[in-house]
Amino acid sequence: MRVEPIRWRDGTLSLLDQTLLPTQTLRREYRDYRQVARAIETMVVRGAPAIGVTAAYGVALAARELSEAGATDWRPGLDAAIRTLAATRPTAVNLFWALERMGAAADRLRGETAATAAAALAAEAEAIRAADVAANRRLGAHGAALLPDPCTVLTHCNAGALATAGYGTALGVVRAAKESGKRVRVVADETRPLLQGARLTAWELAEDDIDVTLISDNMAGYRLQRGGVDAVVVGADRVAANGDAANKIGTYPLAVLAREHGVPFYIAAPLSTVDFATASGAGIPIEQRDHREVTHLAGQRVAPQGISVWNPAFDVTPAALITAIVTEAGVARAPYGAALAALRDAAQAAESVR
Amino acid sequence: MRVEPIRWRDGTLSLLDQTLLPTQTLRREYRDYRQVARAIETMVVRGAPAIGVTAAYGVALAARELSEAGATDWRPGLDAAIRTLAATRPTAVNLFWALERMGAAADRLRGETAATAAAALAAEAEAIRAADVAANRRLGAHGAALLPDPCTVLTHCNAGALATAGYGTALGVVRAAKESGKRVRVVADETRPLLQGARLTAWELAEDDIDVTLISDNMAGYRLQRGGVDAVVVGADRVAANGDAANKIGTYPLAVLAREHGVPFYIAAPLSTVDFATASGAGIPIEQRDHREVTHLAGQRVAPQGISVWNPAFDVTPAALITAIVTEAGVARAPYGAALAALRDAAQAAESVR
Repeated sequence: MRVEPIRWRDGTLSLLDQTLLPTQTLRREYRDYRQVARAIETMVVRGAPAIGVTAAYGVALAARELSEAGATDWRPGLDAAIRTLAATRPTAVNLFWALERMGAAADRLRGETAATAAAALAAEAEAIRAADVAANRRLGAHGAALLPDPCTVLTHCNAGALATAGYGTALGVVRAAKESGKRVRVVADETRPLLQGARLTAWELAEDDIDVTLISDNMAGYRLQRGGVDAVVVGADRVAANGDAANKIGTYPLAVLAREHGVPFYIAAPLSTVDFATASGAGIPIEQRDHREVTHLAGQRVAPQGISVWNPAFDVTPAALITAIVTEAGVARAPYGAALAALRDAAQAAESVR
Repeated sequence: MRVEPIRWRDGTLSLLDQTLLPTQTLRREYRDYRQVARAIETMVVRGAPAIGVTAAYGVALAARELSEAGATDWRPGLDAAIRTLAATRPTAVNLFWALERMGAAADRLRGETAATAAAALAAEAEAIRAADVAANRRLGAHGAALLPDPCTVLTHCNAGALATAGYGTALGVVRAAKESGKRVRVVADETRPLLQGARLTAWELAEDDIDVTLISDNMAGYRLQRGGVDAVVVGADRVAANGDAANKIGTYPLAVLAREHGVPFYIAAPLSTVDFATASGAGIPIEQRDHREVTHLAGQRVAPQGISVWNPAFDVTPAALITAIVTEAGVARAPYGAALAALRDAAQAAESVR
């Protein structure tokens, strides 16, 4: 895998600017957590797991800043940074999960100097990053086993290496299928309005020499209708305790169409994406984004002035339309409430044994 | 209605260039049928009824050219022009319907001079144009009666004044509802890849002070899921004898989603769009268009090089998903084979009485 969306070296966070792909490959460097928050908001980095990892590094940068400023009581400043990072995007739960994990690490560092805390929090962020890649590889292997050989996978948005610390969730399943020797082709929705499918998924699959066909979102129905698609595999930004899954806008119609045509619909997401505190999809906040994302393309206005625009960034697919949820701990099937809790408990038990 | 997409004056065809809307309002003038054919191919004019009317004027321009060249046997030249115009776009049946009607008029002019034929064929094209507007007004009234008050209509692509000689089919229904005193709002899919919803539907509705909210195509599922949409109303490029309807790519998924949410799904199309010679949707040719429409936006590349693209311009909605087909002669409901034939026969009987 040649794609490294998030890199940490010598106390500097480096992000591959995903707003410029595929025409420009530019890395941006961050030493200020406020700039990291802005990078999450403006989608320099996006994808639920990648947002979580990036926010964790943002906390590490805040800790270093407090240490360099000679703070003795570093915790209030750290909490302010955590609040700033938490206010960037509302839907992806991995953001809150990662910030909570950093907060818990800070709790364990009570009484330590700011310098000690900064070093320990950087190590914690690095552990979150490494765990994400490892989880995606396990998730990919579980998902790959569900695919026939040869197979054509339809995906939406980018749940790839770029959406994670590496390897990807939905595209991790594709990569694992290829690594296991299966012949796998991908049909990628371009994913309006920000075109993550065209810009990111097509790009990272082409980089990995995986066969990809780009379509606009509204072609997926016809593609499923004419046959030849073996599975729909997408990521998630938040999975409720009952299995309802929020993902990039346009995911829900794919689930309805997949059922219409008897094609399995899989969610690929690490357990950090499952929000056990939210009972159902009705409790997941849906981010509304700037109207300009719809009215302008490549900086040019494509819609008349003075009209209304509705631009929700996500929709929620009801659990009933989901064939299975693939996690790093195994494959959950309905009823999801029990299945997801069992996977979580098994993962925690395995963790405590280590 | 301020929008006049197709105008004929003193032997010159004038088209509003729909590729430039909404940022530029530019009319192009045509005196050569070959340029008219090119305008249809490149979608300076688009929309099934508008393509038919434009092609009819193209035949009239060819007749005038033959007359000015002093042709005595004008028919072979006219047939060559008809073949050129017929080869522009394969899916919209109104193109072939209008060209057949012009050919039949030419048959009746056998033995006449080229000058007489040119005048008569210009009059025939003008009659087709006027009949289209009149049909849309009757169609609109039939469709408006199906809508509640107040109502929100979801539409796709542009089946408006710009897609016809004027008034529109799906948007004719909206206009007629408004004229009848109903409070009507429109949710418009932007309609990738060529953005006819954003560029044309939003523009012409805003020009007519009709409330319009723009969404990207993949938001329609969530919009229907959350409720508040009373009907989906779209046009058609060809309706088969059994009621299967080809329309802009992305229409079929809307029909599946409308049924999922108990929302009626209406096709609004004049009888000239019904192809009684094609038994079902399986017989409708689907145009594939240039990959650049998907890989580039506003002239800028948005997808990586070296990937595959699939760019069908239309899909087919099975009759079973269509609540009703609204025509100028009345509203057809399933079984469509008998209902559409009955409307055609009634319209022909009314025509012969006149």
